[in-house]
Amino acid sequence: MAGDGRSADADVPRPSFNLVPIGKVERQGETAVCIRLFDEYADGLLGLVEWSHVNVFYWFDKNDTTERRRILRVHPRGNRENPLTGVFACRAPVRPNLIALSVCRILSVEGSVVTVDALDAFDQTPVLDLKPFIPPDNPVKNLKVPAWAGPGR
Amino acid sequence: MAGDGRSADADVPRPSFNLVPIGKVERQGETAVCIRLFDEYADGLLGLVEWSHVNVFYWFDKNDTTERRRILRVHPRGNRENPLTGVFACRAPVRPNLIALSVCRILSVEGSVVTVDALDAFDQTPVLDLKPFIPPDNPVKNLKVPAWAGPGR
Repeated sequence: MAGDGRSADADVPRPSFNLVPIGKVERQGETAVCIRLFDEYADGLLGLVEWSHVNVFYWFDKNDTTERRRILRVHPRGNRENPLTGVFACRAPVRPNLIALSVCRILSVEGSVVTVDALDAFDQTPVLDLKPFIPPDNPVKNLKVPAWAGPGR
Repeated sequence: MAGDGRSADADVPRPSFNLVPIGKVERQGETAVCIRLFDEYADGLLGLVEWSHVNVFYWFDKNDTTERRRILRVHPRGNRENPLTGVFACRAPVRPNLIALSVCRILSVEGSVVTVDALDAFDQTPVLDLKPFIPPDNPVKNLKVPAWAGPGR
């Protein structure tokens, strides 16, 4: 678990962490998408069918290079008319840790397979985690977004 | 990047992925919480101040043992009266990949520090990623949750 990185702001070794894929995305058509867990993780799905929506965490594996993981600023949505923006202020698929997140509606849970209505991920993308979507106790109010991400953009 | 795990359902080596902390949680009082990025990641915050809310991804580092990462079913919220539930059907801090996610209101962004109104994480918890909270194009409707997670529970 311990890495050999060193913090610039403290002389303390930085850890690193190991992610293992729990399954993969299987695209079969234009709409529904299967999340097929490896068999040994199927027990972790008990009760998921009682939820309507799930957060799907996956890995932008096509961008897993040292170079792309060093990118810190982009023009969001690949549009150079959008202002240069930090990767932590947008959802670019390049970032230091290539975690992707989508909220999906669950269509079915059968065995080790969760079928969702839509998921913007390539076929065979590694899946990292599933967490049910829990509506916040206090709905998120007074939302503010930058112009480039606003309605109609 | 490539690990030495093997898939049970296909004779294909399974990759594993490396996460690096981008910063850490600093608790200073009962309410506001600082997310202090390591200096080399500060450029990634450009434009975050234009958002009101941020998804904070962090690592349940206190549970990073082989044993805890093998747990696939729990009684949610540590309450044995709640039904045994898969870790992918609840938000237990034990799971194969110890990714934690919270939506937080941004109070300020200054230099390499993001201050949020609340974050249920221990002091010094490693932070993995920040993504702005984008309201869904179509609000999440017809939400369903299990009884143990319902209102008033």
